[in-house]
Order: sequence, then structure tokens, then C-alpha cells
Amino acid sequence: MYKDIKVDPAQLEAALDARLKIRAGFDKPTAGMAAGMTQVNMISVPRDWAYDFLLYAHRNPQSCPVLDVLEEGIYATKLAADSDIRTDFPRYRIWKDGEMVDEVTDAREIYNAHPDLVTFLIGCSFSFETALQEAGIEVRHIHDDTNVPMYLSNIKCEPAGRISGNMVVSMRPIPSHQISEAVKITARMPSVHGAPVHIGHPESLGIKDVNKPDFGDASRIEAGEIPVFWACGVTPQAAVMNSKIPFAISHAPGYMFITDIPDRAWIG
Amino acid sequence: MYKDIKVDPAQLEAALDARLKIRAGFDKPTAGMAAGMTQVNMISVPRDWAYDFLLYAHRNPQSCPVLDVLEEGIYATKLAADSDIRTDFPRYRIWKDGEMVDEVTDAREIYNAHPDLVTFLIGCSFSFETALQEAGIEVRHIHDDTNVPMYLSNIKCEPAGRISGNMVVSMRPIPSHQISEAVKITARMPSVHGAPVHIGHPESLGIKDVNKPDFGDASRIEAGEIPVFWACGVTPQAAVMNSKIPFAISHAPGYMFITDIPDRAWIG
Repeated sequence: MYKDIKVDPAQLEAALDARLKIRAGFDKPTAGMAAGMTQVNMISVPRDWAYDFLLYAHRNPQSCPVLDVLEEGIYATKLAADSDIRTDFPRYRIWKDGEMVDEVTDAREIYNAHPDLVTFLIGCSFSFETALQEAGIEVRHIHDDTNVPMYLSNIKCEPAGRISGNMVVSMRPIPSHQISEAVKITARMPSVHGAPVHIGHPESLGIKDVNKPDFGDASRIEAGEIPVFWACGVTPQAAVMNSKIPFAISHAPGYMFITDIPDRAWIG
Repeated sequence: MYKDIKVDPAQLEAALDARLKIRAGFDKPTAGMAAGMTQVNMISVPRDWAYDFLLYAHRNPQSCPVLDVLEEGIYATKLAADSDIRTDFPRYRIWKDGEMVDEVTDAREIYNAHPDLVTFLIGCSFSFETALQEAGIEVRHIHDDTNVPMYLSNIKCEPAGRISGNMVVSMRPIPSHQISEAVKITARMPSVHGAPVHIGHPESLGIKDVNKPDFGDASRIEAGEIPVFWACGVTPQAAVMNSKIPFAISHAPGYMFITDIPDRAWIG
């Protein structure tokens, strides 16, 4: 879990500003927003599925690190002041029987219609990107202002009850000479996916074309750069699809919630 | 979670021997048995309480680090070959409505009568004692062949659903000049309770007399030694009592299950 450390008031203000901007309608990927502040993924499932999901997350901590659990009817997380998870993600996906049936930017109505939902906030690899940048490692999708590329891999997660699925991974192209440093930096933050799950060979993850991600946008890979893959908090959405959970709400991949917790609070 | 590392066959044999000895009736505290192999606490609750308990453990990871979850009807853990959690703890406590109603050394009959139980195996601080000893730090209760002293502290755990309670802590007297080293060694193993929760002032944990533990035996505290307190996997039993869970089975404090996982597999 996170350390209770003093936060720079300017950073807290940047996080609050980002949430208010998102609440007012900002509808783009959030990588790079309120730099240095933790971003989170989200999945809401019916109470009847909450135990299976929590156990699934527990058994797959690298892809599904649970940072907060909001019980039925609770929409404010302890991770951010004056928050409402129904409005503070830029974009939501609505799932029925494992199929995406709608995307919305304000989810209050749909949450009100489904009062039995339990919400899990899941760590996000955007939370180690500031640390990478501070070490002089370019984060391509921030530099190019695109969404991070994400892929449904062939890595099977450990099932739990009725829930099973494969791991979703995010990819960042890293110059060869900086890969060791990127591993060291991210390994220190297991609550936001930690060290890479794979380096250098997309085919062995079942990825046929690294330029055609399953979620988000492709990233330029320049000469001398190697694709590096991290576990991704979109993994619960793959589980929703594969397990045909009767109803669920998630964020849209890359469209995250910005908390009041500094990234460095997760350094183990 | 633990790293999948190669294990010395002699250590695996020692762990198996310990389990077989326990299965055959050994009925004493297990600290020091099969040195270097991970020991675990246990709590079984009805399926209807499993979500509340898993969430409670998730919210209180220092005292309740969940190392395995066995679903209804499953009694073998992945943490040890040919294991049966109904016979491989030396001693069990049976709980009704939050009160201990019986102690047994073989729990097969009672598990068979309660097929809806879900079992949680919880990290145990015995798992860092070999590392302390290797650093030249005497572990008093092993040296004196007594049970470790444990206390119900005044530290409130974060509640979850119907479950609430205070943290149970274990105590080891450590010579002043070795405390820093003891903190460093144990901090590296958060899955088996990690760094101490308190050093030096039992009263501030609500402990009136350090020589009268709530569970286990008192430990001699010699001149120049400071009582050091770690979170303890008996904390779920305090939650059972406080929350009046209708039925539960736990191990008896100090009477643990010995796994095939070496302690060093938990070093983060």
C-alpha cells in the first residue's frame, strides 16, 4: 500500500484541477496529466461477483493491484478529496454479458440504475512514467500525445471462481541502453504494475503486429529501441469479456482517474 | 507473492517430515521447525463471510497477508505438496459466534460437517526468524523453547463489511544495538508481516504487562533488551471474536503449518 507522505500543495492542486477538468467534460487519454500523481484504472461489478473479482485480483497482483475498494453506494475514494468515480474518469465503458454495449463520459445515471455495484480501483502504469522521464527515458506516447498501446496477451491469469482471462499488457519502446534503468525504476513500484513482464519479443506474448494494439494507439518504435511490456490495469476488462460477467462498468483504456497520492508513495 | 526459486531438497524433506510429524500427532508450537521454510497462520470462515474477510485482509495487509485461498471443499494448498490443512496444523481452535468452543488436533470431522468453509492461509513472522538468527540475533522463544508471546493491541484494523477488530502483535526482545538490523531484515519480507509496528513502549499499544501475553508464553527480557512488536497472523482470530462470525476454524496461536516455500522466496 502507499506511504502517507507529505504532498506538495501545487501537486494536490494540479490533481484537483485535472479531476475538475475531467468532470467538466475533458475526454482524452490522461497520461502526463498532473505529472507525478497516481492514476488508477477502474472496474465495477455486481456485489454477487465482488468476491470472485477480489480473489482474481489477489491471485494476479501484477496486473490487478487493488488500491481501493468502494462498497455498494460509495462513489468517493479515500485516494482523492471530493472525488466521485462516476464523473471523474473522462470516459466509461458499459458491459453486458461480456460485451461492450455503450461508452459514456458521465456514468451517474447508469450507476444509479445499478445500486449493487462494488468498485475496484486498480494501479496504473502511468504512475511510473514521471519517474522514467526524470531518469531521462522518453515516454513515447506522452511525447507524441497519443494513447498508450495495449495488447491482449497470451499470458493466462490465474482464475478465481467464475472469473478467468488473459493479461493485458501496455508497451513502451525504450532505447536498449536505458532498459536496465527502466526495469530498476519500475520494479520499485509493484502496486502500479512493477517491473516489465516481457522485453523484446512481442510474438512470444501472442502479439502478431506490435503496430496494431488491441486498445489505445500504436507507438513509433525507432531504430535501436526495444518494445518493453508491462502488466496493465485493463486486464479486468479482458476478464469481464472472457467470463461474461452479466453487468460491469469500467473506464475506457487510457482514460484514467487522477488521485491525490504522489507516485513516489508507492515505492516499496 | 513469492518468487519461484530452487529449493534445497534437504529443506523440502525437512518441511515434509515436519508436516508428517504434525499429522501423526505432534502438538507443540512450531517456531524453529524446518528452519528456513515458511510457516503460515490459518482462518476458515463460511463462504457467506469470505468476501468480507478477503476485503478485511486486503485492507490490513501488514497483519493479514493472504498467501493462499482455498475454496469450499479444497484442503490442499499450492504452498506444500501432499498437504491437508485439516490435519497438518498441530492444533485447531473452533469458534462459534465469536467464542472459542473447542480445541482439536485433527479437524477433518469438523470440516466435513461444515462443507461451506473457505480457508485463508496468512503469512507468519516465524518465517523471518531464521534470517534474524543468521544475522546473529537471538530469537528468545526459540532459544528458550517456549511459544512466542502475542498481545491484543489497541491498534484498530480498518473494518470491512461486517468484520472489525484490533491488531494482534507478536513480541521479541532484541538487544538495543541489533534493533536496526532486525528492522532492516524484516522490512524486506512484507508478506510475512514485514517491519515492526512498534519498538520499545508496550504501554502505548495498550499492553499493561508485557509479561502477561494474551496468547502464547511470556519471553524473558534481559537488561539492555527492548521489546519489539510485529503484526501477527492471529489478528483474524481477534476479528472472529469481535465480529461474532457465526462459525470459524483457526489454528491455535503458535501452532503453524509448514510449507515447501523457503523464507527467502518472500524477500521483495
